[in-house]
Amino acid sequence: MTNDSKPTPTGLALLGCGTVGTGVLRLLQHKDGLKVRAIAVSDVHKDRGAEVDSDLVGEDIDSIIQRDDVSIVVEVMGGIEPARTAIRNALNSGKHVVTANKALLAQHGAELFACAHKNGVELMFEAAVAGGIPVVRALRESLTGDRVEGFHGIINGTSNFVLTQMSEFGATFDDAVAEAQALGYAEADPAADVDGHDAAQKLQLLMYLGFGLSLEQQVRDIRGIRALTPLDFRHSEAFGYRVKPLAVARRNADGVAAWVGPALVPMGHMLANIGGVYNACFLHSEGLGALLLSGRGAGMMPTAVSVVGDIIECARKQRGTKGRAPMEGTVRSEVLANMDERQRIFYLRFTVVDEPGVLGRLASSLGSFGVSIERLVQEEPGGKEHTEIVVLTHLTKQTALKAALNDIDASDFTLAETLWLPVEDPDS
Amino acid sequence: MTNDSKPTPTGLALLGCGTVGTGVLRLLQHKDGLKVRAIAVSDVHKDRGAEVDSDLVGEDIDSIIQRDDVSIVVEVMGGIEPARTAIRNALNSGKHVVTANKALLAQHGAELFACAHKNGVELMFEAAVAGGIPVVRALRESLTGDRVEGFHGIINGTSNFVLTQMSEFGATFDDAVAEAQALGYAEADPAADVDGHDAAQKLQLLMYLGFGLSLEQQVRDIRGIRALTPLDFRHSEAFGYRVKPLAVARRNADGVAAWVGPALVPMGHMLANIGGVYNACFLHSEGLGALLLSGRGAGMMPTAVSVVGDIIECARKQRGTKGRAPMEGTVRSEVLANMDERQRIFYLRFTVVDEPGVLGRLASSLGSFGVSIERLVQEEPGGKEHTEIVVLTHLTKQTALKAALNDIDASDFTLAETLWLPVEDPDS
Repeated sequence: MTNDSKPTPTGLALLGCGTVGTGVLRLLQHKDGLKVRAIAVSDVHKDRGAEVDSDLVGEDIDSIIQRDDVSIVVEVMGGIEPARTAIRNALNSGKHVVTANKALLAQHGAELFACAHKNGVELMFEAAVAGGIPVVRALRESLTGDRVEGFHGIINGTSNFVLTQMSEFGATFDDAVAEAQALGYAEADPAADVDGHDAAQKLQLLMYLGFGLSLEQQVRDIRGIRALTPLDFRHSEAFGYRVKPLAVARRNADGVAAWVGPALVPMGHMLANIGGVYNACFLHSEGLGALLLSGRGAGMMPTAVSVVGDIIECARKQRGTKGRAPMEGTVRSEVLANMDERQRIFYLRFTVVDEPGVLGRLASSLGSFGVSIERLVQEEPGGKEHTEIVVLTHLTKQTALKAALNDIDASDFTLAETLWLPVEDPDS
Repeated sequence: MTNDSKPTPTGLALLGCGTVGTGVLRLLQHKDGLKVRAIAVSDVHKDRGAEVDSDLVGEDIDSIIQRDDVSIVVEVMGGIEPARTAIRNALNSGKHVVTANKALLAQHGAELFACAHKNGVELMFEAAVAGGIPVVRALRESLTGDRVEGFHGIINGTSNFVLTQMSEFGATFDDAVAEAQALGYAEADPAADVDGHDAAQKLQLLMYLGFGLSLEQQVRDIRGIRALTPLDFRHSEAFGYRVKPLAVARRNADGVAAWVGPALVPMGHMLANIGGVYNACFLHSEGLGALLLSGRGAGMMPTAVSVVGDIIECARKQRGTKGRAPMEGTVRSEVLANMDERQRIFYLRFTVVDEPGVLGRLASSLGSFGVSIERLVQEEPGGKEHTEIVVLTHLTKQTALKAALNDIDASDFTLAETLWLPVEDPDS
C-alpha cells in the first residue's frame, strides 16, 4: 500500500429506504470515506429510482447487519419492530447505530442505550428529536459543562404550521390541517402531530439528555391544538401574546415540570416569532443563559443531514481518528470572491448644503453613474445650514455606486462623507 | 484497584486566569472526571480570590505544559505571544489544546491546526468564535454531511448592543458606547469591536470551518459602525429594515464573498430581531435550509461553558471512551414534578348562552374558587344564541382553575367545554 492509496471507506448498512433513507443516500454520494454496502427493504421488487443501487438491496435485515464490511448501521425504517430487534442486534455485534426513530427511543431507549454502553459503541439519534436542528449535539457536547435549567421547544412543525395559518390568515383548524397535508407537512392522519404525542416523545428524549431523567418516566401532561379557533388568536394578540405549540421542561424544587400543549408566549419573545414549519429549541442554562436553535425541523433533507452528521461522527470514532484538524486535511481551494461586480441595494445618507437645486444635482449625478433611486427622503433642515438626504437605490453595482459617491463627495454641495450601507437579505 | 474505585481524573493545565479562566474554574468544580493540576499566570503574587487554589499557580508556562499529569492544556490568556508558543509546545508534546483565542487562530491558525493534525491531538476553539453559541460544533459535526452555502452572523455583541441602543432609544453612538462600557459589554478602547476587526477574525474562522477557506486569506471588506446616527435607524425602519452589524460569507460563482459591516436587514427576518448583546449565526446549507443559533455570545460564563464543553470532548477522546450513552451512565434521579400547585396565568374562552346575568355568574364562580381576572372581553354575539367570553387571569393555581372550570362547565349557561391555555414566558 503506497502513501497515496486511499484508506478503506467505512461501510454502512441502511435499514429502510423511504424518504429519509433516500435523502441519506443522496448526501452520501459526495462522501468519499463512507460507502453503503447494503440496504434492507421490505420489498426488493419495488422500483426505487436511480438513486438506489438495486444490487445493494435485500430483505434479510439480520444478515445485512452481520456483514463484516459494515461497521455503522443506519436505521431509518421507523416503527417499533423490527427496528428494535435490528438495533439491538447491531449494537450487540459491535456496530455503531444511527437512528431517526423517536417513537422507538421514547419507548425502548433505556434498554437500547444500556445495550450501546455495554458494547462500547454509539447509538446516535440527532435526527430523532428536531430534524436538522442540532439540539442533541448541543445537549450532549456543548452544554456538558453547564447545568440546563429549562427547555422550551416548538418541536412539532405540523402544529406550528397549523397555528401559524390560523393566526396569520384566520384559517380554521380543519382548513389549516388540510393545507398542511396538501403541502406534505402533515400525514393523512395528523393525530400524532396535532394531539401532542410526537412532541411528547421528543421532549422525553430531550429531558433524558438535558436533565438525566430516566426514559421510563413518561410525560403525562399532553394537550393538542384541536380546540383552538381563530378567535383565540385574535384575543391573545390583543393581550400581547402569540399562541405557540410548546413542549416545556423546567427544573423546579420538586423535580422537572414537563408538559406539551399550546400556550400564550409574550409577543416580544424569540419563540413567539418562530412561524410556519420552523422548529425551535430555547434552552436556559446556568452558565450560558439563553440559547436558541431554530431551523426546519422536519422533512427529507433536514432529517437526512442530521443522520449523516451522526454517521460521520461514528465513522471518525470507528477509524480511531484521534486528532482531527477542523477540516481533517480537506481544506479546499476556495478563494475570496471579488465583490465589485455584485449588484446590491444601498441605503445612502448625503449631508449637503440646504440650497435650492442640490437635490436635483445629487439625483442627476447618481443617474449619470447608473445608480437609480427607489426612494428618496429629504430631512427638514430645521434652521441648520445643512440637510440630510436619504436614498434607497435599486440594484446597483458596487463599483458604480463608489464612482458616484466619489463624484458627489468631491462636489461643492456635499459637507461630509456620504454614508452607505448595503441591504442584505439573508434569505435571498 | 477495586471495581468501584473511581478512574484517575483527566489532568488539565490552565494558561491564564482572568475572567474566562475564573469562569472555567467555577464550572469545573462540579466535574468529577476532570482535575486542574496547574495554572500559569504572569504574577503569582496577585490575589485571585477563593476560587483559585494558590498551590496550583505558577509562572513557568513550559514546565506546566510538560507535566506528566496534564493531558489537556486550556489557553485562556489571550494575545499572540506567549500563547502561540505555548500552544505549539503543548500540541508537540501530545496534549490536546482548548483555546478561546480568536486573534491568535485568525493569524496563526494554519500553522497551529497543522501542528495538531501532525501530532494526532485536538485543537478546539468553540469559545473563540461566538462565545457560548455552538456554531463551531454545528459546522464541524452537525453539518458535515451538508454543503454550507452562506453564513450571516451577528457575532460582535458590543456592536449589536450599541446599534440596538441607537435604534430603540435614539442614543448617539458615543452615548451607546459609554453605556456598553458602563455595563461591561465594551472595552475601554472599543475599536476592535466597533470597527469590525473582532467580527472579521471570527468570520475567518467560520469560513475555514464552513467553506474550507484557507486561514491565510484575510477578509478585506471590513466596515465599522461609527458613522451611523439615529437618523439612519429612523429612515431604515421607515423603509422596512433594521440596521444590524453583520458578518457575511456566501458562496458564489467565483469564490466566497465575505464582508463585515452594518447593513439593512428586512424587518421580518429572524436576524433583524436579535437585539442587545445577543449574538446570532444564521447558516444556509443545501440540505438543511436555514439554521439559526442565537444566544449570549460573550461574557465570562458563556465563553467558559464553551471552553468546558471542548475540554470534556477532549477528555472523552483522551480516555478513549468509545461508546458513550448520552449521559455516560450519569442518569440522575430526577423525577417529573407534580404541577398542580404551580401558579400560572391562564387564557380562558367560555362558550355561554347570550343572556343577561351570565357574565356576572361566570365572574363570581371564578372568584369563589380564588381565580381572579386580569382582563375580560365579551364577544358580540352577532345574532347567534351563544357568545364567547375571553378571560386572562392573574396568577392562579392549576388545581383552583380546574375546580372552577369543572363548576362552570357543569352549569346551565355553559354550552361547550371551556378552553384554557397557560401563559408561558420562557424568560421568567
